[in-house]
Amino acid sequence: MMDALLRDVELSPFTGASCVVTGGLGFIGSNMSRALAAAGAAVTVVDAGVPQHGGDPRHLVDAAGPIDVVTADIADDAVARPVAGADFVFNIAGQVSHLASMEDPLRDLDLNARANLAFLETIRRVNPGVAIVHTSTRQVYGRPRYLPVDEAHPTEPVDVNGISKLAAEQAHLIYARTYGMRASVLRLTNVFGPRQRLRGDDSGFLPSFIRRALLDEPITLYGDGSQSRDCLYVDDVIAALAAAALCPDAPGEVFNLGNPDDLSLAEIARRLVSRCGTGSVVTVPWPPERARIDIGNYRGDASKAKAVLGWVPEVTFDDGLAATIAYYRQHLAWYV
Amino acid sequence: MMDALLRDVELSPFTGASCVVTGGLGFIGSNMSRALAAAGAAVTVVDAGVPQHGGDPRHLVDAAGPIDVVTADIADDAVARPVAGADFVFNIAGQVSHLASMEDPLRDLDLNARANLAFLETIRRVNPGVAIVHTSTRQVYGRPRYLPVDEAHPTEPVDVNGISKLAAEQAHLIYARTYGMRASVLRLTNVFGPRQRLRGDDSGFLPSFIRRALLDEPITLYGDGSQSRDCLYVDDVIAALAAAALCPDAPGEVFNLGNPDDLSLAEIARRLVSRCGTGSVVTVPWPPERARIDIGNYRGDASKAKAVLGWVPEVTFDDGLAATIAYYRQHLAWYV
Repeated sequence: MMDALLRDVELSPFTGASCVVTGGLGFIGSNMSRALAAAGAAVTVVDAGVPQHGGDPRHLVDAAGPIDVVTADIADDAVARPVAGADFVFNIAGQVSHLASMEDPLRDLDLNARANLAFLETIRRVNPGVAIVHTSTRQVYGRPRYLPVDEAHPTEPVDVNGISKLAAEQAHLIYARTYGMRASVLRLTNVFGPRQRLRGDDSGFLPSFIRRALLDEPITLYGDGSQSRDCLYVDDVIAALAAAALCPDAPGEVFNLGNPDDLSLAEIARRLVSRCGTGSVVTVPWPPERARIDIGNYRGDASKAKAVLGWVPEVTFDDGLAATIAYYRQHLAWYV
Repeated sequence: MMDALLRDVELSPFTGASCVVTGGLGFIGSNMSRALAAAGAAVTVVDAGVPQHGGDPRHLVDAAGPIDVVTADIADDAVARPVAGADFVFNIAGQVSHLASMEDPLRDLDLNARANLAFLETIRRVNPGVAIVHTSTRQVYGRPRYLPVDEAHPTEPVDVNGISKLAAEQAHLIYARTYGMRASVLRLTNVFGPRQRLRGDDSGFLPSFIRRALLDEPITLYGDGSQSRDCLYVDDVIAALAAAALCPDAPGEVFNLGNPDDLSLAEIARRLVSRCGTGSVVTVPWPPERARIDIGNYRGDASKAKAVLGWVPEVTFDDGLAATIAYYRQHLAWYV
């Protein structure tokens, strides 16, 4: 498996460095772990191995360098040892299902908010000087009051997952500001790419659309599919994670990772079906239970990430889509 | 013990109604419970009886009507029975110590965020149509970016207690918007009055100032004490709780309870010492650990509560102070 990225990312500062990646068997975590290993970092993945969260040991197969895996929840004491020797912690673990968070809200709070608070307490105890980058989500904003959404936009989660993720990111910021810990937060928009969990329809629209196109099934759009979203290819997220970990001005700060090139859901589905040559698009009226938690159009303002981290998204939707489809065509049985 | 309020509050709609008051042995909860009992409501208090949270069975002594007490955390199954038969739930329970939340962040998250989520799940199961009013705090805003602070001001907690309280209030709003539950949220500013816990210096400045004045001890101001705060006498909060419970437009909404008559900490201390005839005021440089979590000046904008609930604060600081001091003079041994 070649791990060439679709964009330039400055990873040489991580050569020889000790990096912990939580959620490193999952989508973004495994891609980050592989990129770091390819750059010559000593990578330790911490992952609870919850299948519904997208973790899969096969995500690390044929990585360009060795990757240690510690099977543990970030709330466990077992994380103390790898964290104690780390130069960088990429804290990506989390439950991302919005529907699951409403079906079992206490579990969502435990997995996201409580576990991250426990993890921060562990880091504060064993390695308070380590650089930490935590991935949050644009879901914390809720229904946008204006576009593009900048970091000063009010946060108003529309589901329990949004509450838990907001609590987790705020904990990172408070630990940075109160204890001088070097933690920063990235609020991701819709990310896609290889190694994303495609099963189920409860982890965002992109994996669901991709699975249906690949399996030659219809992609269902609610209403006319005109709601717009900004999408990010995972290599752009890797670039932001690296930049935030290295930037001396990042700790205590939160950064939107958005993309000015937003697309309607209908256009995303159309391009996906066109590129796959399989699948189709159907429109249905809004189911009431989905309409209640929909947020309308969304586009994030990433000016702060550009100004402070020097980060801009570089991978076009079409280039990302081509690489994504090629990957899943090769490994489809793992994902459907 | 006479329970006459220092302002008019329309409580007749609660006559004969079944009311659950969580945290009903504590400061605001016990005052609300007594007011409801005096109005002829059937009141059931749910209180975990954690002494550090200010709960004290003596707070209900000589109430004007009978009050049942269920000793339970709001996360316990034991709350299902009283909640099932309730017409109104005043959900006031919570841990309020900012310093304790930093010393034991997981406990704070459990007591505030997790317990409220469990409580909402119980209500959804046994009595989803009940009116619920939840008390949150202006602490969720963090350091004000502008004054007065309205409900659209960004939320940026400065400690774990702020995270937990924000999660709890967002859960109420999400349950209202998603399931049609009749839950509303009040963000309180600094409240004072009878039956507030005075021990310790970790539950806000007012109880600490009041205790020191009563015990003829010096009140310590950081810096020059020029930071301003808006204070609310507890009877004004009772009026808002009642109004929110009865207002058909309150569910799913959050309301600031602020006071346009803000005062500097130095002026508050001066008036307190003057009225008590005991105590003194000293100024010291800011301790770094306090400066880090201080929020500067604060004044809340309660225009929305006025427009929607018809609520305005009516009790002057001096009238509230006189009643407060008279109460503590009578019961000082319970509080110091």
